[in-house]
Parts: sequence; C-alpha cells; structure tokens
Amino acid sequence: MTVSASPGAAAPEVTAAVLVEAIPYIRRFSGKVVVVKYGGNALAGAADEVAALASFVEDIVLLHSLGVLPIVVHGGGPQIGALMARLGKTPEFRDGLRVTDAETLDIARMVLVGKVNRDIVTALNVHGPIAVGLSGEDAGLITAAEHDPALGFVGDVVAVDARMLRALLDERLVPVLATIGADGRGQSYNINADTVAGAVAAAVGAEKLVFLTDVDGIRADPADPSTRRSRLSPGDVDALVATGAVAGGMIPKAEACATAVREGVGAAHILDGRVAHALLLELYTDQGVGTMVTEMAVGS
Amino acid sequence: MTVSASPGAAAPEVTAAVLVEAIPYIRRFSGKVVVVKYGGNALAGAADEVAALASFVEDIVLLHSLGVLPIVVHGGGPQIGALMARLGKTPEFRDGLRVTDAETLDIARMVLVGKVNRDIVTALNVHGPIAVGLSGEDAGLITAAEHDPALGFVGDVVAVDARMLRALLDERLVPVLATIGADGRGQSYNINADTVAGAVAAAVGAEKLVFLTDVDGIRADPADPSTRRSRLSPGDVDALVATGAVAGGMIPKAEACATAVREGVGAAHILDGRVAHALLLELYTDQGVGTMVTEMAVGS
Amino acid sequence: MTVSASPGAAAPEVTAAVLVEAIPYIRRFSGKVVVVKYGGNALAGAADEVAALASFVEDIVLLHSLGVLPIVVHGGGPQIGALMARLGKTPEFRDGLRVTDAETLDIARMVLVGKVNRDIVTALNVHGPIAVGLSGEDAGLITAAEHDPALGFVGDVVAVDARMLRALLDERLVPVLATIGADGRGQSYNINADTVAGAVAAAVGAEKLVFLTDVDGIRADPADPSTRRSRLSPGDVDALVATGAVAGGMIPKAEACATAVREGVGAAHILDGRVAHALLLELYTDQGVGTMVTEMAVGS
Amino acid sequence: MTVSASPGAAAPEVTAAVLVEAIPYIRRFSGKVVVVKYGGNALAGAADEVAALASFVEDIVLLHSLGVLPIVVHGGGPQIGALMARLGKTPEFRDGLRVTDAETLDIARMVLVGKVNRDIVTALNVHGPIAVGLSGEDAGLITAAEHDPALGFVGDVVAVDARMLRALLDERLVPVLATIGADGRGQSYNINADTVAGAVAAAVGAEKLVFLTDVDGIRADPADPSTRRSRLSPGDVDALVATGAVAGGMIPKAEACATAVREGVGAAHILDGRVAHALLLELYTDQGVGTMVTEMAVGS
Amino acid sequence: MTVSASPGAAAPEVTAAVLVEAIPYIRRFSGKVVVVKYGGNALAGAADEVAALASFVEDIVLLHSLGVLPIVVHGGGPQIGALMARLGKTPEFRDGLRVTDAETLDIARMVLVGKVNRDIVTALNVHGPIAVGLSGEDAGLITAAEHDPALGFVGDVVAVDARMLRALLDERLVPVLATIGADGRGQSYNINADTVAGAVAAAVGAEKLVFLTDVDGIRADPADPSTRRSRLSPGDVDALVATGAVAGGMIPKAEACATAVREGVGAAHILDGRVAHALLLELYTDQGVGTMVTEMAVGS
Amino acid sequence: MTVSASPGAAAPEVTAAVLVEAIPYIRRFSGKVVVVKYGGNALAGAADEVAALASFVEDIVLLHSLGVLPIVVHGGGPQIGALMARLGKTPEFRDGLRVTDAETLDIARMVLVGKVNRDIVTALNVHGPIAVGLSGEDAGLITAAEHDPALGFVGDVVAVDARMLRALLDERLVPVLATIGADGRGQSYNINADTVAGAVAAAVGAEKLVFLTDVDGIRADPADPSTRRSRLSPGDVDALVATGAVAGGMIPKAEACATAVREGVGAAHILDGRVAHALLLELYTDQGVGTMVTEMAVGS
Repeated sequence: MTVSASPGAAAPEVTAAVLVEAIPYIRRFSGKVVVVKYGGNALAGAADEVAALASFVEDIVLLHSLGVLPIVVHGGGPQIGALMARLGKTPEFRDGLRVTDAETLDIARMVLVGKVNRDIVTALNVHGPIAVGLSGEDAGLITAAEHDPALGFVGDVVAVDARMLRALLDERLVPVLATIGADGRGQSYNINADTVAGAVAAAVGAEKLVFLTDVDGIRADPADPSTRRSRLSPGDVDALVATGAVAGGMIPKAEACATAVREGVGAAHILDGRVAHALLLELYTDQGVGTMVTEMAVGS
Repeated sequence: MTVSASPGAAAPEVTAAVLVEAIPYIRRFSGKVVVVKYGGNALAGAADEVAALASFVEDIVLLHSLGVLPIVVHGGGPQIGALMARLGKTPEFRDGLRVTDAETLDIARMVLVGKVNRDIVTALNVHGPIAVGLSGEDAGLITAAEHDPALGFVGDVVAVDARMLRALLDERLVPVLATIGADGRGQSYNINADTVAGAVAAAVGAEKLVFLTDVDGIRADPADPSTRRSRLSPGDVDALVATGAVAGGMIPKAEACATAVREGVGAAHILDGRVAHALLLELYTDQGVGTMVTEMAVGS
Repeated sequence: MTVSASPGAAAPEVTAAVLVEAIPYIRRFSGKVVVVKYGGNALAGAADEVAALASFVEDIVLLHSLGVLPIVVHGGGPQIGALMARLGKTPEFRDGLRVTDAETLDIARMVLVGKVNRDIVTALNVHGPIAVGLSGEDAGLITAAEHDPALGFVGDVVAVDARMLRALLDERLVPVLATIGADGRGQSYNINADTVAGAVAAAVGAEKLVFLTDVDGIRADPADPSTRRSRLSPGDVDALVATGAVAGGMIPKAEACATAVREGVGAAHILDGRVAHALLLELYTDQGVGTMVTEMAVGS
Repeated sequence: MTVSASPGAAAPEVTAAVLVEAIPYIRRFSGKVVVVKYGGNALAGAADEVAALASFVEDIVLLHSLGVLPIVVHGGGPQIGALMARLGKTPEFRDGLRVTDAETLDIARMVLVGKVNRDIVTALNVHGPIAVGLSGEDAGLITAAEHDPALGFVGDVVAVDARMLRALLDERLVPVLATIGADGRGQSYNINADTVAGAVAAAVGAEKLVFLTDVDGIRADPADPSTRRSRLSPGDVDALVATGAVAGGMIPKAEACATAVREGVGAAHILDGRVAHALLLELYTDQGVGTMVTEMAVGS
Repeated sequence: MTVSASPGAAAPEVTAAVLVEAIPYIRRFSGKVVVVKYGGNALAGAADEVAALASFVEDIVLLHSLGVLPIVVHGGGPQIGALMARLGKTPEFRDGLRVTDAETLDIARMVLVGKVNRDIVTALNVHGPIAVGLSGEDAGLITAAEHDPALGFVGDVVAVDARMLRALLDERLVPVLATIGADGRGQSYNINADTVAGAVAAAVGAEKLVFLTDVDGIRADPADPSTRRSRLSPGDVDALVATGAVAGGMIPKAEACATAVREGVGAAHILDGRVAHALLLELYTDQGVGTMVTEMAVGS
Repeated sequence: MTVSASPGAAAPEVTAAVLVEAIPYIRRFSGKVVVVKYGGNALAGAADEVAALASFVEDIVLLHSLGVLPIVVHGGGPQIGALMARLGKTPEFRDGLRVTDAETLDIARMVLVGKVNRDIVTALNVHGPIAVGLSGEDAGLITAAEHDPALGFVGDVVAVDARMLRALLDERLVPVLATIGADGRGQSYNINADTVAGAVAAAVGAEKLVFLTDVDGIRADPADPSTRRSRLSPGDVDALVATGAVAGGMIPKAEACATAVREGVGAAHILDGRVAHALLLELYTDQGVGTMVTEMAVGS
C-alpha cells in the first residue's frame, strides 16, 4: 500500500470533497488530547525507518494544525540494546523486562532522553517550534518506584503530575515524553513505555490513546489474521489476556488500553504503525483500522 | 463541474494524502480573519439556489473548523426587488443605485435583516450554534451618512466600529452582517454591500477579503474569457476602472478590493461563486481561481 | 397625566432632593438584570406611538446609566397583521394563536427582526452605541419546538442558552430580542413574546421581569378597576387563572410572571405602559403601580 | 435655602422628570474620578455641623451610587487647635502656617487620622462598607519634605504614588485621605490639605477637583459679592493672586485649582459648602455655582 | 541576651551555613499568612522602647522579604491611659475592661489609629512602601456590638470581612490594624486587641497567630518559670483557664489562641517579645520558644 | 575552607543576626533572574564531585526559596570525552573546539541531554518538583548555525527564543539547559556553553550572569594570584583579551560576560566554584569574590 503525498497529487475537486467529508471529524477532535505511543517496534517492520518517522511526524503536525492536542510517548528498546552492545554490556531479561543496573540505567537514559527523544523533537520542530522534549523526571512529572529488587532500576508508575503537560498543551506545544521516572530520593528508573502512555492518557483525561505497533491489532488467534477483533471492551481484553490469546509484548499494550478506558479515556487503539498515516486514517475517516477498546464494545 | 461529497467517496489513502497536502494552508490561515461577501448575484447563475447556499455554508463551517475566523457580509438586491413588486412599489435606479424612500428603506431592511440574514444564520447554525446575525445599526457598528439627497436613504460608510465583531470572533462565533448603517440621529441607510465588505475587512485587519460573484474574475476585455487577470495590484485595478474594462456592478467590488488591500488587508479575491466550494479551492489548494488583488501583483 | 421633561423644568433644590431620595433604589438595582417585555399592545392605547417609544427608550437609557442591565424582549402582532394585509394574506387564529404557514413565518420574521427590532435598536442607539438586536436564532439563543402541528410554525421554548446575553451584558450592552427561535434542523418558529420574556428572565437570573401592557394590572374582577391586586404570589396567579379572572392575552403574561418567580426571578410586574415612565416610577419611587408577583405576596 | 429630603416629598411624575433630565450628567460623570476637598472651614458657617456632615455624606454616597469614583481629602485645623488648647499648647502661626513641633505633629496626626478621618469614614459606612481611611504615610502614598526649618514638621508634597488609590477605586471603594505625609526616613509632616487635594487630583487624572468652602467663589473684589467670577483660566487665577484679589486661605485653594487644571484635571471648582447638596447641584444640574477653573475660561 | 546585627558581624561561611539551614523553614512559610499581635505590654519590660520597635520592624520586614504575608494587630492601652491623664480623665476599669464613655472612645481612637498605628506604619515604611494602616471601621472590616451597657463603647467582634485584608496581601502589602470596630449605625467601639487578632487569624485562614507579650509563655504555675508548657491543645488551654492557672490579661490571649486553632489556624504562639527577634527564632530555627497551641499537642 | 551545614550548627541568636543582615540582599534579588553557568571544569578541582554538586544544588534551591529565578546552563566536556573514549572515538580539537562529526554529535547530545542534564535535574528535584531539563532544540529555544565547516556540527547561537524560559520562570520552575541548538532544517549542533549562558542571560534580561569555574577570577597576570581584578568594565575585558592576559578557555567566559553586560545584564561574575556556596556568598554577603564585570567598573 502506497500513498502519494506529492503536492498537487489530488485534483482540486477531490481536495474540496475530502475536506468537506472531514468536517465532522475535525470538529470532534479539535481541542481534544490524543496520546500517541510511538515505539521502536512500530518501525521494526518498516522498510525505511527514516520515512516512517517522517510520516509519523507529518501526522502529528497535521493533528496539531487541526486543533488536536497530541502528546507523544516513546520507548527505544532496540536503540538501548545497540548502545549496550557497543559498550560491551550483555543485556539480560527476566519475564521480558530488562535487568537494569546503574550503568544500564545511565545508558537507557542517555539513549531515551538524549537520542530518541531528541530525534523526534527536532523532526517535529522542522515544521515550526512546536515540540518540547520531557523526561518523567522533570518537575515531578512521573513518580516511580522499584518494580522488583531483582530487576534493579526498573520502575512502576506511582503517580503522574499532569500540570506541566497541561501547561504545555495550553501553549499549543507538543510534549514528547521519554519514559524515565524518579522517586522522592532522586533515584531514576526506566519504565515500560506502554504503561506510561496509559497512565499519562488517564491523568490528562485524553480523548484517545493510540499505540502504533507492528501488528494489525489484537487477534483472538494470534496466528490467524482473520480473527482480528475491531472492537473490545476492557473486560474482553482481560479475558483475552487470561486465555493467553494476548501474550508477550502485547500484554502491557492491551492492559494499558483497558486501564486507560476504565479511568476515563474515551477510546484506546492498537494500530499498525507500518501503514502510512495510520493515525490520520483512524481519526479522520470512517475506516476503522486495528483494534479499538471502549467501554461499550459491540463485538467485532 | 460536480463534486461528490457523499461520505466515503474518497479512498482512505487519498484522504490522508489530501490532508497532508493541506497542512501548510491550514497553518497559514488558522487564527486569521477572512471576510466573505456573499451576494445575490453569486447565486443568479446557480441552477439550484438551495444547493448553492448549502455549499457555501459547508465552506464557512469548514473554515470555522480549521481555525479560520470568517465574517460573512451579504446583500440581497433581487429579494428586495421581489418584495417591492409584491407590495406594488416600482423600483427606480439612478447610476445603478436604488432610489430609496422611507418605505423602500423599510422594505430593504426587512428583507436584508429579517429574511436573507436569517436564512444564512439558521443554515449555519444547523452545524452548531456558531452564527450571529448583525446589522450595521447594532452597537454603532457602521456609522453611515447620506450619499446623495436625490437617492434618499442610500448611505456611505463613515466609520466601522469593529469592537463587537472582534468580541464575537474572540468567542469563535461567525458574524453575519446585513449592510444597513445608521447615523447619529438614528436614521438608517441602505449601503452597497461590496463597499461594506471592504470597509469591514480593513477595520478588522482581515487576512483576506473574498467576493463570491457570478463571473470568473476581472477581465481586460469583459467579452473575452481568455483575458482574465489572475493577479492585480491596486494600481492595476484603478487603471482597469479608468479604461472602462471594469464596469457596472463590478466597479464597487474592484474598488473595494483595491481599497482594502491599500488599507492593510493581505489579499482580496473575486471568485466565481457558482463553482462548488470555490472558497475552499482558493484557500486550501495551489489552484488559484478568479482574480487576486495584492500589493505586489506580478502580472497575470 | 403628563410629565414635563423639558430641561430645567425642576428647581435645583428639587433635583437634589429627588436624587437623594433615589439613592437606596439606585443602589438596590445597580448591576442587576431587568427583563422588560415591550409589546405592541402597550402602545395600542397611547395617543402618540412615537412619543410612547421615545418615553420607553428614555427609561431604558436611564436604567443603563444607573448601572442596571436591561434586556428588552418585544413582540409585534399588530405590525405582522398589517404587512400580511398589504400582501393579501388573511390572518387566521386558533385559541388566540396565529396559524403560521411558511409564508406567514417569513412575514413575521421580517417584521419582528427587520422592522420592530430595528426601530427599537436605532432609537436606543441615538443615545450612544448601547443596543444590539438579536433573534433567538442567533448562536442557539432559543431552541424551539413545534407547539401544535395544526398551527404550523408556532413554537414553544425548549431551552434558552444565556451565554451570549451574558456576554453582551458584561460589555454593558442592551440586548433587544425578537422572539423567533429555531430547532436543531434550522427550522424557525414564531414564539409568544410573553413566554420568551419569562424564560429569558429565568435563564439569566433576572432581578425583575416587567411587562409593559395596556392594562393597569391584574384584577380579581376584570370589569372593576377597584379590584386590582397590587401583590400576588405565584399560587395566587394560578388561582386567578383557574377561576377565569385572568383570561385571554393576560394568561401568558400572568403565567410567565408566576413561572419566572418560581424559577428564581426576584419579582415580576404587570404595569400600564401607557403611563409615562411607568418603569422608572416602579423602580425608583415608593409608588407601586400595577401588579407585582413575588414568592411572598402579602395580600393586595 | 432649605431642601426637604423626606421620602415621598416629590410627586412621582416630578421624580421621573428629574431623573430623565439628569441622564446626560449621569452618563458624563460615570466612571470618572472626582476629588473633593472637605474642610473645617466649609462647616464654619453652617448652623449645624452634624447636619452639614450628613448632607455631605449623602452627596458622596449618591455620587458613588451613580458610578462616580469620589476621593475625599480633608483637613481639620479647628479641631487640631481645640485639642492643643485642651493640652495647654499655644498655637503659633507664621505666614498663615502652623509652627509644628514634634508634639504638635503628634496632636495633628491624632486629630486628623484618628478623629476627623474616622468621623467621615464611619458616617459614610453607615450606607454600606464603601469608605476606607488613609493617611499619606500608607504604602508611600505621599512623599513629603520639610517646607521651612523655621516651621518644624510642616511638609511640601514631593510625590504622590497613586497606585493604592487606584486599587481602591477599582474595588469601588471611597478613599478618605488625611493629609499627613512622610519622608524616606520615616519622619511625618503635616501638609496643607488644599495642596494635597490638588496634587492627588493631578496624580489620579481626576475629571474634577472640588473645594467645599465657606465662600461663594472667587471675587474680583472680595468685599463685593457681585464681582464673583463664574469661570477662570489658570492664567486668570495667577493674575488675581498677583493683584491681591485672592488672598489669605484662598491662595492655596486657588493655586491648587490652577495647578491641577494645568496638569490635566478637567475642571476645578470652589463652591460654597454651606449650600445644601452644593456638590450635586454642580454636577447634576445646569446651575453652575461658585467658581470654575478650566483651561478654556470664557469670561464670567 | 543580646544580638549583634551590625553588618559584617557574621563570617561569610557562617552566613552561608545559616542560610542553607533555613531553607526548609523558608519554604514552609513562604506565601503563608502570619498574624502578629504586637502589644504595649510586650514593650513594658523592654529597656528601650524605640529599640524594641526597631527589632520588631526588622522581623516583619524580613518575613515580608522571605515571602511570608504578615498582618500586624496592635493595642495601645498604656498610651491611651497617658493621654487620658494629660486630659484630666480618670480611667475606670471593671473586670479588667476599661469603662469607655464617648470622650474616652474618642481618645482611644485618636491614640490607636492616629498615634500607635502611625508609628508602626511609618517605621515599617522606612524599609519601602509596604505597610498600610487600617482601623476595623474601614470598609466594614470589623463589625462590632456593645459588650455590656455598663462599660459603654467597649465592643465584641461580631464579624470580620477579610476581603480588604486579602486584597492588600495580594498586593504584597502589610496591613497594620488598629482594633476599633463599628456597628451598622456607624457607632464605633474599642475592642480587646487579643480577641481581634484571633478573629482576624481565623477569618484569613492564617498559618500562624503569634502574641508578642512580656511573659515567656503559659505556665502551669504562674509563679514558677519551670512550669512553662511548650505545647498545649485548645482543650489544655480551657483546662488551665478553668483552674485559674491562666488568669488576668493572659486569659484573652490564651482563649484567642484556642479559638483560632479550633477555627483552622495552624498554630498559635505566646512568645516573650522582649527577646530580640523572638519572631524569627520561632519561625526559622528549631528552637521553640514560649508556648505553642495546636490541635495535636503532645505534652510539654 | 569548610562550611558546616549540619542542622543546629549556628546558635539561634547568630541565625537571627545573619537573617537580619541578609534582608537588603534578599530584597534586591527577589523576583530577579540569575543565570548560572555550571561547568565540568568547576568540578575538576573539587575533591569530591558528588559533594560539589550537592553544594551547588543547595545554593540553587535556596535562591529559589528566596524568590530568585535561577536558570542553570551547563556543559559537560569531560563526560563527553569519557564516553567517546569508551566507544573508541579519538577526540580531535582545533583552536580549542572539538571537531564534531555526526557520531560525536550523537554522543555529545546523549551525554549532555541524557546524562549531565538529568543528574542536575534529579538532584534539584529531591528538594521538590522544581527543575525542568531543556535542550536548545525544544520549541525553538536556541537557533544555531554552523560555526566552521571544518569543525562539523559545532554551532554558533543565531537567536534565543526566551518565551518558554519565561513561561517556566513564571511557574516558579528552574530551567536546566543543555547547550544543544538546532537550525531550521532540524540539524542539531553542539554549542559552547559559556556563549549560550551569555546569550540566554541577555535574552531574558537577567540581573546577573554567574560562571562557576575552577579559577578565582580574571588576573592581569594569570600566573600571579595577587593580580586578580575584582571589577572590570566590558572595555577592560576586551583589553585583557587583546593583550593575551585572558587566554584559552577563559576567553569565551570573559567575552560572554562583556557581551551580556553590554546587552543589558546587570552584572556578570566569574567565581571559583570550588569554594563551597560561592554563589550564596556572592549574592548575600558584602564579601565580593572572583571578578565582576559591570558597565561602571571602578578599578580593582
């Protein structure tokens, strides 16, 4: 599937028709907060990582132009692993979580805050000075606590102080958040980015929480594309996790969707970030893609 | 030329491409004031007057959704003539201006403020409570003076008090203005709507002034469509009026364009209102239609 | 009864005494909203309609000068009838309500919004740019619904959105309201002006609702002036309607008074608008005129 | 001359007429600052000092009710003398100024701030909590400097910091100012109240400065009432002082009027405070009393 | 005990250490209201009254510099007595309260508002224009009622209107309050300053209420310094009053502490005002001095 | 030189004396912006780097508590070099500037934004959520341009957009700025931190700019401590640079001081950051340390 976005591609009358069609969607989302989790895995399947970032950035800039208030939350697992390898550190995982000693935390923080976050911020700011990079350590944004002593500096979200996020949104700026948090003694922790995205969405009362991933949604049978569920309730999510249909790295995403919706977020989506402009298609057309979790799911 | 605006008409990837293309235009006009003169003559050539109003209303609603601050100025000559005919009054014109005795003024005011203005306001408000009807008599908006004793209550614009317009725009409301003004003694006057549109655009510091008419622009030779000028400077306009190339009802429009641009309006346009969504095409595509008057015209 | 208002009529010491006497009343009503229903019938008994309007306008301007926040609500039945007659339409009434087909609605709207409203607005604005004409169709001010299919476009008040009224009052402007409303599909309706005045008074939390009529108040026996009741509770009003003592066009006025008071308006008055400056006398002297409806009526 | 202010004294139609007549004056002074110097000498000729204060208070309360922003400045020479006498101090004057040693300053301050100021504040506050007593020592309101070492703690006005006055006026409060000032070292001074009134009027940009005195105005020949001048320019005042026509305690009043007008105050008045409600008559009727100083005096 | 406050007295490294130590206290009290009762009795034991006032003023200015919002409440019993003596009036007391006839009230008001209040205000304003003197009569700050007809114009606090205090605090000004109140008819009363301080602290929701006295706190046995209680609950205070351990002039102080704490003030303190900078020591060091009343007293 | 900051170290009376002494300094700097450049070199001479950071953090927290608005600008040369070494990159310098290829830029950015900045932010936030980390790339804060093609991604400051800094200061937050900037195409650059500190101080109109270094100030003869200059004018600085007395890494600091003062900063200081609490001593005692650059230097 390809999209030609070269200027002048659409005939004027098509442009007019598309814009008129989009009116109700534009009105619905104007002034609303949309939290987007943009992850390394979303890019894993993309042939061209640079093009994927460019497409993502265009979508965020368009949302911003249309009055939406986006917040970007990102991880960076592959990039952390790459720097560790160069520095001769061997990654170690337990139950899918990275064992994080002090040096690993330093590396993770440098990569997330000083590399991935910067790349997204500067790519957005080519379109105007709209993006501000943040870490959860800033102004007490994310209070964290140790998840498990055996894992070292891996953290859970204890609290989200949304005041600085709101202040930036009020100024029409786009917060880009690296998922490091700190406790009251100044110790930092690396936190699962899916979990942070869900907690932030709930804390700011987001209209939508969107995960851009490398799968096309949640499937009743992971091996069978035809079993993708287009709509689920939080309870449906719980059941699919319990049966093992949702597994591995999809678990924190699915649970973040269910929790966020239970805490008041309008809808949470798991989309295939490899599809160009998946975010726009979800928000501004009738074509639902991926899986949507809402309080009132009406079957798939 | 037809535009199908039925939902789902455009393929999702086309929608995405169109929206991405529109980003720079959306950003350019967001928060800017656009004054649109919508006239009876714009509709004269439309096969279906109701459809033409619906298309116009869709365009204004879209502009409003995209953060533009539209002001609608309207006339209603044909409708005034129709009511006069039903009441047995014979219209009389001198130099293209309607001789307006007290009874004619009453009729004009009833038609403009109580009929045409109402029809536009209620059509817009179907999309949400966004439009407010005004007459230049409200809160001293338009101070008028007698144009010529021989013409009766035909007025010139003496001053525009833009405070109420700004207050409404600040509330994200769309002012719809009937072109009646009053003098300090409470005497009302009927004023040429093209002139009012230009004066209002200058008074509010509009980014654009747009005339929706029944012609495709200003032509060096009115009889020859191939002589349409796409860009003119105010001086060019003066010259075309002086040579007679601009004549009749086009004179007040052309002069309002030139004056408004001289008083700081970014650009003034004369478009063919019979083309569906002409307003959208002008603002959100590269396809310039009609004639644009700007300080720095660079030939046609 | 005549009032000489020519400049210099009162001796200076009388002026001083009058002003000092008025202090407590001025303080009591400063900053308070007073909704005044000004009706065609108020003028029916006045020898000179122009003088009556001038006197009314002087009163509103004085209230405004003294810090009161007036809202004027008006009807225009006689004027609608006059234009219908000129256009060859025969008015038809059922139970006192005008049967209103589409053409009649157009006529009513032209007369109310484009004629009566304009006359009041321009008369007020001779004293400064203080008045703004409104229709209930503006910015969703009055949501209406069909009263009875047999009557056509005669409406009931479903909801009043007081935000624009408050915004205008905050700017120290005087809203002048024509009693046309619209439903969500953009269909307009003509609504009884007495009912609108009561609903608006309740919606803005007015201190007073005043009906200027052509009678001297509510009488226990309509034929006997000596039975005028100076004070009534809402329950008293219900009883007088039930017994038939209040009948005809007085019913909507009396019921609007009772309803408004029940919904929090401080007091509602029915005054004889033919008495010069009746409004001033009611507000700024001890001389109660007409009938006052309050929660705590203490007999007549 | 007597004024009966008992309730109900005026017939209702007279009340209405007076109020309608007052409209233009009410509108002219609403929101404007009027500085009133109220002095012991104003009361010297009044048969009943308590009644005189009551009448003055009624006037200030009415002004406040009508939207005027009054500032009261007062002296208290006779009362200072009385307490000095009781304490066995012999007053000593040089060139009309009281020689003020430390003990005399203490007495003056107690009388002005703790007695006269309090009496005016509490009399006003019977009508509602509208008055606040101030000394020029509060928050640096009046910076003073020694006038002449031979006179002790008699001060000149060096600067007026009008911020607190404006803050109180913004809250619709009436500042009542005792004319004590202080220098940067915390030393207080007694200052001529006429001079302070003029300086305050200039500092706040007052519309009017009014001196309530015990004379009927400035006379070309002090002994001849028929030579009272109704209007003077600042230059006229200078000339009358130079010729000695203005002499004694009238000099600081006259000079304060001239200076204030030169510094932007609209008009300055010297009225006979013994005439009941002289302040109201001056502001709200055509009857000019006393002497008015304005930039454009047009003869007497 | 002496404190050398001459510039340069402390070595730089001591200065740094002291400031660093003070950080948590500075942060705790910044932006909080502290009501300080400063009484004549606090000074009675001071060898040098002028030095005592200077030290008190330094403390208030420092609090103000550190972001605290101080309110000063003062009495002036000895000074009232002195002026009465000079005027030949014999003070008369009943149950410790001064019998106050009209002349005594005048004297008390002159001394409190025109002498003591002024001295504190001007001493503070040497450090910048930060202090504003007030009486409870200003703008209805303290509504009072007669305490006992036999005592004359001695008042109880009926209500505190804290709006003007808050407005001054918002402007970062220091209100200095003389404890005269007035009733609705304009009659003033002299009120116990301890009681006023407590009522004001409760009305503004103060963090602390501090009485600067001439004793070192509340003692279980007044004659035995070793029985000083460092912490008391309001109930403890009641018990000590009931047993007579708290007696005489200490009763209103102790009861004001207990009442203020019960009405939400964080803590109330009785300190020895003769100790230099007692206020600073209490707020900015760990060294608790005097007696503190809090909801959760934990024994002495 | 050691400072004991353990609680209770100072006797209460010393605490009181120190606080009273500090009043004028506290008042002078309250509400003022102080930009502090904190550099790796400041720490090079400190025996204990952790203790040095802790002392610096205490100073910034105290300044914040005392109402000062600090902005921290930091570099991190040694730390960049350390990571480059671990990754096998050989640093290369030309004229004292690091040759910066794409990989080196990535490393510098990770270290500055993701390591040094984070360490300062989290150390500050132990005292409350007051610090926010920023890069010059955020919201267009620092627009940069290539310094010299031969050096790669080493940047000059083209413009500082101080809006976000001001917004954070308005919220009483402490911006901590890593000195990476970006150009309009999204290319990032590493910029000399001394230069950034000076440009930021000028852009926000700082009261003071302070460099914490590892020298005791500017010396006329670098080898002779007795030639330290305590005060210099910008012209003096120019002369010392021209003669070579100021050389090496001191040049950008000295020039930043001179430029900032010329652009309106009140004073710029070069202090020895190895002295504990040097910042406090400079601001809150008479003891000037290091070198101060001001417009009006009056000899050393």
